Amino acid sequence: MDFFFEPNGVAVVGATPETDSVAHYLIVNLTLGYRGPIYPVNPKYDEILGLKCYSRVSEINGPLDLALILVPAPAVSQILEDCVTKGVRGAIIESGGFAEVGPEGKTLQDQCLAIARKGGLRIWGPNCMGLIDISKRYVFSFITTEAWKGMMNPGGVSLIVQSGLLSAGFITTLMGNRTLGLAKACSIGNKSDVEETELLEYLLNDQATRVIALYVESFLQGRRFFELSSSTSKPIVVLKGGKSSLGAEAAVSHTASLAGNDELIKGVLRQAGVHQADDFLEMVDIARTLEKNFLYQRPSGKKARIAVLSYSGAAGIVTADHLESNGLTLARFSPQTQKRLEELSPPWMPVKNPVDYYPAMEKHGPVLAFRHAIETLHDDPEVDGMIVHLFAGFGTWLLNTKEIMPDIKKPTKPILFWLLGPDQGREVTRMALEEEGWPTFSEIHRTVKVMASLFEHPRRLGADPPAYQWLSTKATSSPKIPHFSSQVTPLLKELYRQAEEQEISILDEHEAKKWLTALELNVVKEEIVKSYAATLRAANKMGFPLVLKGRVEGKVHKTEAGLVKLNLCNPGQLRSAYQEMLRLSPKPQFFMIQPMLKSDLELIAGIIRDPQFGPAVMLGLGGIRAEVYRDVVFRLPPLNETDVFEMASDLKGETLFKGYRGSKPVNMKSLSEWLIRLGWLAQAFEKIEEIDINPLLIVDGEPVAVDATIILKSDFHS
Amino acid sequence: MDFFFEPNGVAVVGATPETDSVAHYLIVNLTLGYRGPIYPVNPKYDEILGLKCYSRVSEINGPLDLALILVPAPAVSQILEDCVTKGVRGAIIESGGFAEVGPEGKTLQDQCLAIARKGGLRIWGPNCMGLIDISKRYVFSFITTEAWKGMMNPGGVSLIVQSGLLSAGFITTLMGNRTLGLAKACSIGNKSDVEETELLEYLLNDQATRVIALYVESFLQGRRFFELSSSTSKPIVVLKGGKSSLGAEAAVSHTASLAGNDELIKGVLRQAGVHQADDFLEMVDIARTLEKNFLYQRPSGKKARIAVLSYSGAAGIVTADHLESNGLTLARFSPQTQKRLEELSPPWMPVKNPVDYYPAMEKHGPVLAFRHAIETLHDDPEVDGMIVHLFAGFGTWLLNTKEIMPDIKKPTKPILFWLLGPDQGREVTRMALEEEGWPTFSEIHRTVKVMASLFEHPRRLGADPPAYQWLSTKATSSPKIPHFSSQVTPLLKELYRQAEEQEISILDEHEAKKWLTALELNVVKEEIVKSYAATLRAANKMGFPLVLKGRVEGKVHKTEAGLVKLNLCNPGQLRSAYQEMLRLSPKPQFFMIQPMLKSDLELIAGIIRDPQFGPAVMLGLGGIRAEVYRDVVFRLPPLNETDVFEMASDLKGETLFKGYRGSKPVNMKSLSEWLIRLGWLAQAFEKIEEIDINPLLIVDGEPVAVDATIILKSDFHS
Repeated sequence: MDFFFEPNGVAVVGATPETDSVAHYLIVNLTLGYRGPIYPVNPKYDEILGLKCYSRVSEINGPLDLALILVPAPAVSQILEDCVTKGVRGAIIESGGFAEVGPEGKTLQDQCLAIARKGGLRIWGPNCMGLIDISKRYVFSFITTEAWKGMMNPGGVSLIVQSGLLSAGFITTLMGNRTLGLAKACSIGNKSDVEETELLEYLLNDQATRVIALYVESFLQGRRFFELSSSTSKPIVVLKGGKSSLGAEAAVSHTASLAGNDELIKGVLRQAGVHQADDFLEMVDIARTLEKNFLYQRPSGKKARIAVLSYSGAAGIVTADHLESNGLTLARFSPQTQKRLEELSPPWMPVKNPVDYYPAMEKHGPVLAFRHAIETLHDDPEVDGMIVHLFAGFGTWLLNTKEIMPDIKKPTKPILFWLLGPDQGREVTRMALEEEGWPTFSEIHRTVKVMASLFEHPRRLGADPPAYQWLSTKATSSPKIPHFSSQVTPLLKELYRQAEEQEISILDEHEAKKWLTALELNVVKEEIVKSYAATLRAANKMGFPLVLKGRVEGKVHKTEAGLVKLNLCNPGQLRSAYQEMLRLSPKPQFFMIQPMLKSDLELIAGIIRDPQFGPAVMLGLGGIRAEVYRDVVFRLPPLNETDVFEMASDLKGETLFKGYRGSKPVNMKSLSEWLIRLGWLAQAFEKIEEIDINPLLIVDGEPVAVDATIILKSDFHS
Repeated sequence: MDFFFEPNGVAVVGATPETDSVAHYLIVNLTLGYRGPIYPVNPKYDEILGLKCYSRVSEINGPLDLALILVPAPAVSQILEDCVTKGVRGAIIESGGFAEVGPEGKTLQDQCLAIARKGGLRIWGPNCMGLIDISKRYVFSFITTEAWKGMMNPGGVSLIVQSGLLSAGFITTLMGNRTLGLAKACSIGNKSDVEETELLEYLLNDQATRVIALYVESFLQGRRFFELSSSTSKPIVVLKGGKSSLGAEAAVSHTASLAGNDELIKGVLRQAGVHQADDFLEMVDIARTLEKNFLYQRPSGKKARIAVLSYSGAAGIVTADHLESNGLTLARFSPQTQKRLEELSPPWMPVKNPVDYYPAMEKHGPVLAFRHAIETLHDDPEVDGMIVHLFAGFGTWLLNTKEIMPDIKKPTKPILFWLLGPDQGREVTRMALEEEGWPTFSEIHRTVKVMASLFEHPRRLGADPPAYQWLSTKATSSPKIPHFSSQVTPLLKELYRQAEEQEISILDEHEAKKWLTALELNVVKEEIVKSYAATLRAANKMGFPLVLKGRVEGKVHKTEAGLVKLNLCNPGQLRSAYQEMLRLSPKPQFFMIQPMLKSDLELIAGIIRDPQFGPAVMLGLGGIRAEVYRDVVFRLPPLNETDVFEMASDLKGETLFKGYRGSKPVNMKSLSEWLIRLGWLAQAFEKIEEIDINPLLIVDGEPVAVDATIILKSDFHS
């Protein structure tokens, strides 16, 4: 991709000297930074900005790696042909009017792509703002010159934005406010060829890029994105657009991309250690804070412990509220910290976290008080991070940050500032803090959210997830491939062959449980019976209460079809249930009789195969409310115990795994084995589309599948 | 309270000419605006700022309504004695060192209060910043003069802030940024006497105040606050500090106030039509938007339909995501709107909501395009509110808002702006929009949150809550007092008398169900049995499966004690259960045999008596996950059907009330009757502390209580 970022020769197709055209900015911007050969292309002109103008790309003499194209959509394919002829390596198509506007535009886009693929040309866009490299001052974009000139603020954050216009307004704002230090900004629009994952890989290897922030509406190479982001230590922040059904609806029409299953993407990004944002500036706030490269010392299995230093009790309280709702906790100070803080605080003012240090500030001046408290809290091993409330405005409150920030040259823990004050005075302090590497925020909720994001991925920080507080067993991180796989593979192949032979693509409970049994997973005991006499015999052997299920091949929604009778208490109830099912049409081929299990917890587990991310394993809370509370998590296989432990701890219903009202806790080792094997199955058998184990009951701590469905790809013969 | 807001004569106790003391600001601020007689009080001086200085309050000659006090806490009580002697009517104690610092300070505060109560003096504070009246330029506060001079921005929002310092930093920020038009700002600190509810009442009657925003950590007169806020049309916004356990812990030490049950307060404020905020600036953003007094035309029983006008598809998508998560929806445009918008958009660009109008802006210039689109969307009856994305910075994007806002002199729907741009250019546009009455925001999430807040209270806007979409029956709003009350009151009185006689304060299931039966509420059928023979007879009559419960008087947690055996299927199981319970110690006095109900939904209902809000009715989703998902709502009685319908629609599990997988929907009329009667009971019998109906099962759509506990005040003889 170097020919996009460091091209030898750039053509500007559509360049114009007319200053009211956006294409004019494209050539102007290029000349202001890029030092290699520049070739304006436009049959109407001989010269633009003193540069020789060509009527077409193929006429250009000299080295030419990259074409920037900004002409009406229907004219683009011809230009690409020309680029191929000339041997151009990359084209950034900034024009709109392609897939984002509907089927006609999609056809144009496909034509362009076909030409490029055939000719070995790479395409960036269309419908995008191109790319900007701040440190090199390369602006390969039609962004208004006024929007960036004199405002570039170089830094380590690179952006990938699946959007055209927003990139411009957004980047301009960030540069204008000098909030973010930018390395490279890539606006990829419709991403017909170059997309987020390839760019991510490029930026992961880019020295200038220390943090990558992405706005995307889809992941075209989901699995690869996951693998790259899981295996890097460079922080990544993602804002995913089209999360809701409303947003997804809008997304489809916008860049013609399929927005994925939000819950799945959330789980995958979490598993990969990617930071997730909900809004544009929030994404930037997280990214610019990650760039500071604070050190974290989070204790294993605990929530991050935050110290709050304030000049106001009320602000401390509201901060504490937000800490709790973001999964952080208030630090409990060491006795030494307590003592040191009390040194400056008047005796009538009790010192506790949040620290209301106004009395100390009043007594000793804000500079000394802040300095002393920040130093003290930074030294405390019981403190993982610090939020400082600062008011900057006038008089003694026009604080010199060099004075208040003590000799924490390289802080060993994050220190974030919530800064209030009237615009003018506050801006001075804000800029001073930011320049010295201290992130500031104007709202408490954002300060806390960013702090939470820093500690979001305990595993990346070398600590265990909080779940380990309640789990008696410790997870192991190795066995991603179950040891038994060689034995069961032939069995499963045989089961698959049978389904294929009978052209069955939906395996109902009876069939699906054979697969699970082959995987050596626990399923509910059952007996197959075909007459009432046999049913009664089996019942007496098994003992009441019982469940009677009628099997109609391929019938998956048995409850709705009247094929499940729960909690049968005696032979009378059993007989009525049996007779009722016999009256159904179609009549059950046979019956299954099962014990009515007394479970402590009802889970749901399964796999899906996502077009972008491939197979994914799901775990959730089951029962009638599953759909209401949507308490499910996804992870990509292969899994290990740590992954499964983390899945459980990511559920809102986490606490139910610990056991409640005297019930046994879930055996997490067994549950892990379940999900590891399901994941292995999904990866080993590409023909499996979906597995649904619902419910997966927890009986005496152990998981037991009570019903299951497997969906196979139905193209057996293709 | 007029003597606080419009006093005739103000003494400043602790006044000093020393400019490095905060008490100096108190006297300076006063002289800069207040035109009545001012009396500095300080034995050390004869004159301050050219005013005669008194050594004590009682020496003052002339009219004197109000004393502002800023001296060390231990000196305050003597000054109050003096105020009483002089006949001062109100004292604002701005000093700290009282209840907020611990028991010693609390004692000082109580002493002050006793002196004031005895002498007919009202106290504001202590530990507060006093009050500011922007239009009158009264600053009865030690806030730094630089913090407000030349920055006052008069308007219709009044603040009540339970805090000292924050008020200062906060109000200074707001004034400095000219974001908020302020009427009065009241910092009430420890609120030993004057508190939020009394002030609320005052401000509700204050002509200058159009919206009231409060930061509070407790409601000292909760019920009265509820009644005032329910019956006014003036909008009220509340930020409640100490919501979380962490925040509440901090709150207790801060102003020595008990933070209430967060879920309860949330429900009460919702019932009262109060807008709720989570952060300080969010509170202000909601308040300043409410002040614009937009008109709302929300269709009954539907989500508010929002049009999004953007220059960026991506920003539209993220806005749509936030709309959904905030309970709003994207408007579907009328055919006419569609046509009108297409007039300016190039034919290749499909027009839909969110509207990506950049192509139109490029073609016709942003001024014309914005103007046309805003006018069109404002005219559309299918649009309830509008969010406009604006970029303001330079060139053609230095928009003249007078030009882009069409002749919507008085808008009939809210129009909120999300404004991006580099600081300088953006500020010009922001100020212009704000001055013309168009609220602007810098983040999408905030813009949407404020929009949601405007539509938060459908009943206030004369529309039904969204729940009515799924309810087949229509709620009636009248019968707050059940018609039957005169008949059942004697019955209940008799039951109470019995409990009193036996000194029973915890009524177990057996007793509690008598009360419910007296209220003509449906409880599970039961038979009392005392021998196994009788048990078996009852069982055979009732039919299996059954539930056997042992009754040990006063034992409420029966399950944990082994006193409940569910789902008994046959005489064998019944006998084992019976015998097992007989082995318990203490042995059950008798047994209850009940049918095992097949329910479609497990609810929980009850009442609690809150020290601040009095009796409150609760409804929630029951079962083992009740504690995990905390899906409960509270309302204050008396209730009517509309209240109960709204309670159900406020639950996350709302959808379960509609029926699912073929089960019957909940009979909302019956459920309403349940909660209306429980509320009536709680109000009629003050001795009832708590009622817990858990579970309240829904069987064939009808509520049936299966277990219940009633807790009575145990001070029978007091």
